[in-house]
Amino acid sequence: MESGAIVGAEVEMKPYRVGILGATGLVGQRLIERLAAHPWLRIAAVAASERSAGRSFADAVSWRLPSEMPVTVGALNVRPCRVEEMQDCDLVFSALDTAIAAETEPHFAAAGIPVVSNSSAFRQDEDVPLVVPEVNASHLALLDDVQKRNGGGFIVTNPNCSTTGLVLAMAPLYRQFGLDRIVVTTMQAVSGAGIEGPRAFEMLDNVVPYIPGEEEKIELEMGKILGAIDGGRVRRADLAVSAHCHRVATTDGHLEAVSVGLASRAGAEEVIAALEGFRGEIEGEDLPSATAPAIVVRRENDRPQPRLDRDAGGGMTVVVGRVRPCPVLDFKIEVLSHNTVRGAAGGTLLNAELLVARGRIARRDSA
Amino acid sequence: MESGAIVGAEVEMKPYRVGILGATGLVGQRLIERLAAHPWLRIAAVAASERSAGRSFADAVSWRLPSEMPVTVGALNVRPCRVEEMQDCDLVFSALDTAIAAETEPHFAAAGIPVVSNSSAFRQDEDVPLVVPEVNASHLALLDDVQKRNGGGFIVTNPNCSTTGLVLAMAPLYRQFGLDRIVVTTMQAVSGAGIEGPRAFEMLDNVVPYIPGEEEKIELEMGKILGAIDGGRVRRADLAVSAHCHRVATTDGHLEAVSVGLASRAGAEEVIAALEGFRGEIEGEDLPSATAPAIVVRRENDRPQPRLDRDAGGGMTVVVGRVRPCPVLDFKIEVLSHNTVRGAAGGTLLNAELLVARGRIARRDSA
Amino acid sequence: MESGAIVGAEVEMKPYRVGILGATGLVGQRLIERLAAHPWLRIAAVAASERSAGRSFADAVSWRLPSEMPVTVGALNVRPCRVEEMQDCDLVFSALDTAIAAETEPHFAAAGIPVVSNSSAFRQDEDVPLVVPEVNASHLALLDDVQKRNGGGFIVTNPNCSTTGLVLAMAPLYRQFGLDRIVVTTMQAVSGAGIEGPRAFEMLDNVVPYIPGEEEKIELEMGKILGAIDGGRVRRADLAVSAHCHRVATTDGHLEAVSVGLASRAGAEEVIAALEGFRGEIEGEDLPSATAPAIVVRRENDRPQPRLDRDAGGGMTVVVGRVRPCPVLDFKIEVLSHNTVRGAAGGTLLNAELLVARGRIARRDSA
Amino acid sequence: MESGAIVGAEVEMKPYRVGILGATGLVGQRLIERLAAHPWLRIAAVAASERSAGRSFADAVSWRLPSEMPVTVGALNVRPCRVEEMQDCDLVFSALDTAIAAETEPHFAAAGIPVVSNSSAFRQDEDVPLVVPEVNASHLALLDDVQKRNGGGFIVTNPNCSTTGLVLAMAPLYRQFGLDRIVVTTMQAVSGAGIEGPRAFEMLDNVVPYIPGEEEKIELEMGKILGAIDGGRVRRADLAVSAHCHRVATTDGHLEAVSVGLASRAGAEEVIAALEGFRGEIEGEDLPSATAPAIVVRRENDRPQPRLDRDAGGGMTVVVGRVRPCPVLDFKIEVLSHNTVRGAAGGTLLNAELLVARGRIARRDSA
Repeated sequence: MESGAIVGAEVEMKPYRVGILGATGLVGQRLIERLAAHPWLRIAAVAASERSAGRSFADAVSWRLPSEMPVTVGALNVRPCRVEEMQDCDLVFSALDTAIAAETEPHFAAAGIPVVSNSSAFRQDEDVPLVVPEVNASHLALLDDVQKRNGGGFIVTNPNCSTTGLVLAMAPLYRQFGLDRIVVTTMQAVSGAGIEGPRAFEMLDNVVPYIPGEEEKIELEMGKILGAIDGGRVRRADLAVSAHCHRVATTDGHLEAVSVGLASRAGAEEVIAALEGFRGEIEGEDLPSATAPAIVVRRENDRPQPRLDRDAGGGMTVVVGRVRPCPVLDFKIEVLSHNTVRGAAGGTLLNAELLVARGRIARRDSA
Repeated sequence: MESGAIVGAEVEMKPYRVGILGATGLVGQRLIERLAAHPWLRIAAVAASERSAGRSFADAVSWRLPSEMPVTVGALNVRPCRVEEMQDCDLVFSALDTAIAAETEPHFAAAGIPVVSNSSAFRQDEDVPLVVPEVNASHLALLDDVQKRNGGGFIVTNPNCSTTGLVLAMAPLYRQFGLDRIVVTTMQAVSGAGIEGPRAFEMLDNVVPYIPGEEEKIELEMGKILGAIDGGRVRRADLAVSAHCHRVATTDGHLEAVSVGLASRAGAEEVIAALEGFRGEIEGEDLPSATAPAIVVRRENDRPQPRLDRDAGGGMTVVVGRVRPCPVLDFKIEVLSHNTVRGAAGGTLLNAELLVARGRIARRDSA
Repeated sequence: MESGAIVGAEVEMKPYRVGILGATGLVGQRLIERLAAHPWLRIAAVAASERSAGRSFADAVSWRLPSEMPVTVGALNVRPCRVEEMQDCDLVFSALDTAIAAETEPHFAAAGIPVVSNSSAFRQDEDVPLVVPEVNASHLALLDDVQKRNGGGFIVTNPNCSTTGLVLAMAPLYRQFGLDRIVVTTMQAVSGAGIEGPRAFEMLDNVVPYIPGEEEKIELEMGKILGAIDGGRVRRADLAVSAHCHRVATTDGHLEAVSVGLASRAGAEEVIAALEGFRGEIEGEDLPSATAPAIVVRRENDRPQPRLDRDAGGGMTVVVGRVRPCPVLDFKIEVLSHNTVRGAAGGTLLNAELLVARGRIARRDSA
Repeated sequence: MESGAIVGAEVEMKPYRVGILGATGLVGQRLIERLAAHPWLRIAAVAASERSAGRSFADAVSWRLPSEMPVTVGALNVRPCRVEEMQDCDLVFSALDTAIAAETEPHFAAAGIPVVSNSSAFRQDEDVPLVVPEVNASHLALLDDVQKRNGGGFIVTNPNCSTTGLVLAMAPLYRQFGLDRIVVTTMQAVSGAGIEGPRAFEMLDNVVPYIPGEEEKIELEMGKILGAIDGGRVRRADLAVSAHCHRVATTDGHLEAVSVGLASRAGAEEVIAALEGFRGEIEGEDLPSATAPAIVVRRENDRPQPRLDRDAGGGMTVVVGRVRPCPVLDFKIEVLSHNTVRGAAGGTLLNAELLVARGRIARRDSA
């Protein structure tokens, strides 16, 4: 913990060295893209499966983004995802598949290397903060004990891509009015399923009303993120969530149709004011990937739309619209967020920035 | 009413002569396609806007269906949509836009010519049955007085394309368990908006979370269709419906994610049994466009899907799936129906068949 | 050869028993669909990889077609693709991947079991007819020697999906005017790549200007199919073909933009007349999967289109249009054919029917 | 002509005032977006149809771009497209439909107001330069006489969106090896057809092999642009061009498959070297919208792709790939360019910048 907290981005500092586990996948590529010119973090290592290890990254990866691969990253040797190979990293990002993450991440944490993970393997663990910084940066308090036990190591996770936009849009309502019921129908982009996502012949002229595990994740994650720290543990929010998940033929941007039941009465303009007036828990911390405001409310009757709104705030802003009364619960709202930016790589990176800013990352070579 | 009821399709009979108002639009074309070899009905006249009137149908129409235009229809002269021009029709179908339907349909009804309409202009009128035959054929009782007043003329309508599938899937649950709350999110195909539908640049890689008037229609129509005849009037079902409507990039087939609140307790298998055991109000009447069963339940976890399931029963069967508990209401269900077949031309035609079978259509030349 | 030639479909006959190698893939499924009610052929066995072998077909397959899987086929045990396991088949269809086909098909042929293959492994072999029946049924003459050597066994193949439509459309011009140069640009549907086809995120809002091996296949196959039998061998047509292959975001139907250089002068109306007047080499043989005409010419200026025209003739008819002068070669033409029907399963099946009709298939149990 | 040529962008200067005719259409919107922060040009006026005139731009437009409408432009009053209403403009951009452009543009030119047009109305006029700056900036010489006659006014046009990418890619080959034959098949994005473009139901799961007038435009425009100035006139290049035009389901980016016949022999590496070594006629002029290089050659076997490559150089760079021998002509090449940027608004703007840099635009208020 010797590095001390950073106050604002103005402080010129030596960047932290980061490793990326699962660097060749779509989320890994997005992380690399966003780290290319990062003021606080520098890519020191890329790691992937044994099949890729030993080759240059440029050779091992099938680069899928419109932006060019950073030359310096392309030249790195791909390492295997093992602790002993990543000792020069101050923290590692994990973009690993769940099963592999479940085996791999704890070794890093136990060895004192912080893991900032996009995987779902440990999201529901008592010791693991499940964090969207604007909503529950305070959950990092879970790490106090963990870091002591592990010599600074820990796992921090961000939620599922479809939970991220939803919880950001719901947080202001939860805080201000209370919130007891949510029915949400998602229309999720194909990029959310990664390089092994659905085949084109499955998605063209079609909607698939099922994404394995997705509804359960949303229903579980909302309660933990909106929960409060109580006696060193997260007390889950008392909230019923019902999710209907769909894959639709869009490239990026998860759209969600939400009916909400509030705990106290509010008018549509109050709801909009709560959304527009939202100040997140990182207000004033100047995290490089944070946008202000985190939520934008559009007043047109046909927005948000994935193609038009997903890139708001560089993909980090949640765009909501169509706030209107619901004949069954209280309000109907449409929520859109960029699934591979805010809902994956960008959210993971924002968590890392939060950890740096709050002094949770040490320079390991200074030991 | 002199024609008497037809019992079954076996009775060889002289076909009724039908006219089609709005014949050049997408619904008009679908009607023509389905009437080409109809056992009970024969196209006697096609009518459209003054701009098209006087030209041959083949010349006036921009034919949009994969099937070939019937040659005999192509050779017909397009007439204007006026009563005096359609005196040789025993009934007319109306595939007119709402505003024009509002002006045009009453003239036909008043002149003794039955109007079987797909338009929304009169769906909420006290005198106008809003009919999905399997669900509420009994609502034709509203016509008893109307036909007396009008010398046999009347207007019968079918609901909006997105209501049709929903009400068919909900009817068995309403009957068996009672039903008080529905939250439905639609993902509607572009064909539902007709020839003047959304532009390609609006829909590619996108979802549009708004269809003008659609949510209100669903919310209103459900209560009327599920209502009961009481003292010669429809007593609306006491039912709260909340609709979120979206246009997605599919060609045909409206998919709907539904959360339902039942009035009495039921398990998932009972719900499935109610859906599979549904016997509609036209059971045994052998209407040519009816399918048995009207509802199919799929057990796979990723069905129904528009591309795979929309053509079930020639597009007349509603396919449901993913019946599972809802953490907020009682059950979550996915519903799919073909919007231009069951939800428009096929539904309109089924209404006409019902009217013939129930003796509501007279041969006007026999007068 | 004891079965003798069948003359027309009227002859009621005991069906031949067929096996399907690679039955769980997309082409295998399409074969099963088309064989479900076939008058001459009955599915006796389904075979697939060792991983699937031993399970029921219903269990082993991921059924991808809108039509329902035939129950009787679903109940079959999947066998491994080995000769000794398929001794009860009078012929086998091969829908195997190229590499596996290369290893597997010769064993069947050598053991006396005819192989009707959709794979590319042996298309360029001197002993293997590469057949589109309307164009070069006469190439079956290559089998005379082969069948003697192999106790009736052989391999017959159909061309690549993109070659099939092209060669059918070019055959009338080649016959009537001579044809020396073809520049063709394909826009191919994603179903052509099978279950392992491109991912949705690669194809949405995109065109991929490369399909491995495809251009070479078209360029090579055209010359062989249009060639003549000369001294028991195929003398390749003297024809330069240049192909540009693209994958586009359509589900089915390969569209091809073609510039052709004729050997002799012709006007556009003569070219159209040649296409419309085309009589294939199977004229009058009443093969169940054949359509007459095999080629349809559309006169509208915006046809053929994949969605509107791919199902012409149940997917077996090639639809051409936009015949117009080419400023560089002689004529420009658009060609469309259904890639998984005419270009794969339907084409393979038509070859089998041709072989039956021409007496090339023996009943093996009668030996 | 008193303003004199600008040398490089370093010279701080008072911006020229521009008007936009047809400002509410898609090309108009793209122009506004690109002019928002332009160093040399400032939007002084927006004009549109009489229907829109008199309203604020924000009110009259249906803004279709993901970027926000510039507030200052939204506040402008929309003017009618008449000369007397635009007297405060040093030049006008025309994004008008052809028929209206044909009536409108000459009035401006005659009144001394330069018209920089994206419309096709006058592209083939002897007096009107058809310009892609890198290729034929020298054609501005046509204006010497025109400007004298018109008190500084003139019309300058850019080619059709599908010609622009093609002519840029062909120019280096034409210069270095000579070029006598081109067969090009286009796969064009739906945005190319503007706000009145094809309906979604026409384009989903489909390709349309026809765009009215497009093939003729490409075939004609190539020869004029590649032509040389000779005696104050353009002598057309002696070049046969055959175009097959298609609309595909992409949002932006026209992909073109090209077979070229060179006048002299060259190997593939020489062709690539010519493309990569291309120096346009504006080399060193530092026009704000120009990119260097104007052409990028990709070596991967599956590029260029619309989604991945259309935004290269902010949409101004032409991306080519797959240079390989053609069995019929000499080489096959794939060409991609952004149709609404390089092929429309960006190309028009680049022409305006060229005109400013070469001293062809006067400050009209200084008169």
